[in-house]
Amino acid sequence: MESDRIVALATPYGGAALAVIRTSGAGSIEAVAAMTDREARIIATEGGRLRRALLVDPESDEVLDEVVLSIYRAPASYTGEDVVEISCHGNPSGIQRILSSLMENGFRPADPGEFTMRAFLAGKLDLTRAEAVNEVVNAQTGAAHEMALRRLGGSVEVAIDTLKRELVPIMAAVTVQIDYPEEETGEIPFPRETVERVRSSLQELADSYRTGRLYQEGIRVALAGRTNAGKSSLFNAILKEERAIVSETHGTTRDYIESHLDLRGIPALLFDTAGLRRTREEIESEGIRRSRAVIESADVVLYVVDGIRGYAEEDQRLLQEIENLTGGTTILVWNKIDHGSCTAAPVGTVAVSATSVQGIATLAERIRSAVQREEPVRPGAPVIDSLRQHNLLNRAADALAHVLEGLDQAMPVDVIGLDLQEALNALGEITGEVTSADILDAVFGSFCVGK
Amino acid sequence: MESDRIVALATPYGGAALAVIRTSGAGSIEAVAAMTDREARIIATEGGRLRRALLVDPESDEVLDEVVLSIYRAPASYTGEDVVEISCHGNPSGIQRILSSLMENGFRPADPGEFTMRAFLAGKLDLTRAEAVNEVVNAQTGAAHEMALRRLGGSVEVAIDTLKRELVPIMAAVTVQIDYPEEETGEIPFPRETVERVRSSLQELADSYRTGRLYQEGIRVALAGRTNAGKSSLFNAILKEERAIVSETHGTTRDYIESHLDLRGIPALLFDTAGLRRTREEIESEGIRRSRAVIESADVVLYVVDGIRGYAEEDQRLLQEIENLTGGTTILVWNKIDHGSCTAAPVGTVAVSATSVQGIATLAERIRSAVQREEPVRPGAPVIDSLRQHNLLNRAADALAHVLEGLDQAMPVDVIGLDLQEALNALGEITGEVTSADILDAVFGSFCVGK
Repeated sequence: MESDRIVALATPYGGAALAVIRTSGAGSIEAVAAMTDREARIIATEGGRLRRALLVDPESDEVLDEVVLSIYRAPASYTGEDVVEISCHGNPSGIQRILSSLMENGFRPADPGEFTMRAFLAGKLDLTRAEAVNEVVNAQTGAAHEMALRRLGGSVEVAIDTLKRELVPIMAAVTVQIDYPEEETGEIPFPRETVERVRSSLQELADSYRTGRLYQEGIRVALAGRTNAGKSSLFNAILKEERAIVSETHGTTRDYIESHLDLRGIPALLFDTAGLRRTREEIESEGIRRSRAVIESADVVLYVVDGIRGYAEEDQRLLQEIENLTGGTTILVWNKIDHGSCTAAPVGTVAVSATSVQGIATLAERIRSAVQREEPVRPGAPVIDSLRQHNLLNRAADALAHVLEGLDQAMPVDVIGLDLQEALNALGEITGEVTSADILDAVFGSFCVGK
Repeated sequence: MESDRIVALATPYGGAALAVIRTSGAGSIEAVAAMTDREARIIATEGGRLRRALLVDPESDEVLDEVVLSIYRAPASYTGEDVVEISCHGNPSGIQRILSSLMENGFRPADPGEFTMRAFLAGKLDLTRAEAVNEVVNAQTGAAHEMALRRLGGSVEVAIDTLKRELVPIMAAVTVQIDYPEEETGEIPFPRETVERVRSSLQELADSYRTGRLYQEGIRVALAGRTNAGKSSLFNAILKEERAIVSETHGTTRDYIESHLDLRGIPALLFDTAGLRRTREEIESEGIRRSRAVIESADVVLYVVDGIRGYAEEDQRLLQEIENLTGGTTILVWNKIDHGSCTAAPVGTVAVSATSVQGIATLAERIRSAVQREEPVRPGAPVIDSLRQHNLLNRAADALAHVLEGLDQAMPVDVIGLDLQEALNALGEITGEVTSADILDAVFGSFCVGK
């Protein structure tokens, strides 16, 4: 079952010093070599080597670029197939010309995740690690990146294999009892504690999904409050104290009405609903519509009160409206505490000064504890970030709960055996021992192209 | 004079399958190896090889990423120094972590163009090819990319070396006459035709700068006209018929008030001044201010007339205003010719239909001939895109003109010799035979980091 040759741009589209175009499939090395000024030499190149070449379009004989080729020979490559990675100049027009030429010379555009799917099919990595590839690429904060890297390193695979190894001997013993009931003098003692322990570990891993999602997907935080409560200053103060994800590196303007930031490792999208306001009426109504939408979708709403003016009836009304809209947590923020005439912050509010950034760290911690209610996972414990894994882990844990129920109710061993098998099947699906085309499509369809 | 170790992200910043971090400098291989799980093996690796490794932060022992290292050993590398290119997952947070860790372990951030400057200093390429590296990266259209690639291939270097080789024997003969005037029975016949031919070739190359700039920098085209003349439809029709540079690949919305397009190989920025209009008065005035700025900076203004209504007094007034503002060319466009009641397009206007895209190709050609008045360069002839080269070529051509004048006026041979030497010096500066720190700063300062 030889697969065809695929190609994709593996680096971001845009201008830069370099870009990498990735190819894979039997005959890739020969096909790329035929597009260079040194075909024979490249075909003769062993795997794991770099070769400089002129890339030339075979039809027009035009030089496409001066490139460096990374040559990998099957099975010692990412996909397990022959792979050539073309390192070219990072020019969008040039990249287009090279991609077009490759597509006219034996390559087709790769589907999203197709390189990693081929790696999985070649047995290079199990399905949890394949999923982690995409999670590593998409992680938005350092903390999320670390978690995904542990998964890529096999933390979930190892955890599941360990638990599976505990269940397999039990399943074997149960099978013997089902197949040869008369040969045994009595039933072997069922290792109930083991099943309970495995079930609990599976549940813990399944529950880590909430944390995984939190760090991978992040949260939405909206700033609300009356005019002049200091929302925009607070917006900037939070961005400054916590790390703005893009701004820091690229000097993007910080005056935006929304901004990405790294809030204690959790990626957060911070919205300033004040920024949505305009002065004219019909624009105002559009602003109000957008503010409502922001608050509706927010995980946390920071309701900012001007500590000098104090909490007024208008605040009561606005706050009520917000609580009706949001399904998330509302945190009351008492602003301007650096000011001499600021009133004392009431109990339950977070006292801050956007000017002196006093209290901002406490506020960040409050936001984090609002969204991460459960205990944080044990340090180093695997954290999953795949709904698929989450569902299968729950399925396995539920099946084991049925096993335990069956034992309590003294059900026949073949009934218990079915539940046990169900648990093992679910675990097999997680790592990809058991797969179908549908599963593969679901797993790899969400990948970026080039992975 | 051993240089220090530098590092830079060489691919665009953003999320993707891969990113490449480039390092260079003596000891780079050892320094990167010390940050991996297989230090000894990587240090022992010969040049031109790929190595998989876990990149680990030496302080925290945290895994930074699973990477592939491209190992190049001096002098067989881009910079002529030891080079390691780190191919990691294309995750912005992860890239930041790796860069930080590298900077704490013996690397400093590279200056713009520093990799290429080191390549030049190592004699890997002359100054015209070094400049072409940046031009290849920045070219916006296929045509511009091809021109830059020819320069990178050495077309300018070869042209200049060829011309220099014609002048050097003349200079040698002149020097002999100056140094030993009494030894010669008479003066050698001065090869006037050769000098004239070289001067003319240098002038031609210098003049190609206008074409080079046109294709590299592109032009600004503004759409203007009365309300409902069909400016926005024409904007979209031009984008559709000529190639939108970014949109095509990335599906960016085409409803923008400005858009990049590939107009017959020339990168063009198309502005729809209509898009700047709003309904309310004080916003209107801001819109008008921006429209005026767009027209002032435009190389070509397309003044669109509604062919059904015909050319009215209001058009006369607007057009006069535009001609006062712009230093570029104004093209009159007679729109809506597909419409039954459209009046005949007057002589000198370009008749188009934004709806049926009739006439759009003619319009594109008119824009191009408006900005490219001179004859196009001979096919395959080198085209320069460097003000530095342009000025030096002019200096050399002028010096040769002085040589010819000197001959006409029967000037002494030592005076003619000075002008000849001046021409040779200028040519030497172009390729970088003669360089100073100032020249290098000027050349490489405009590069992107990582090149």
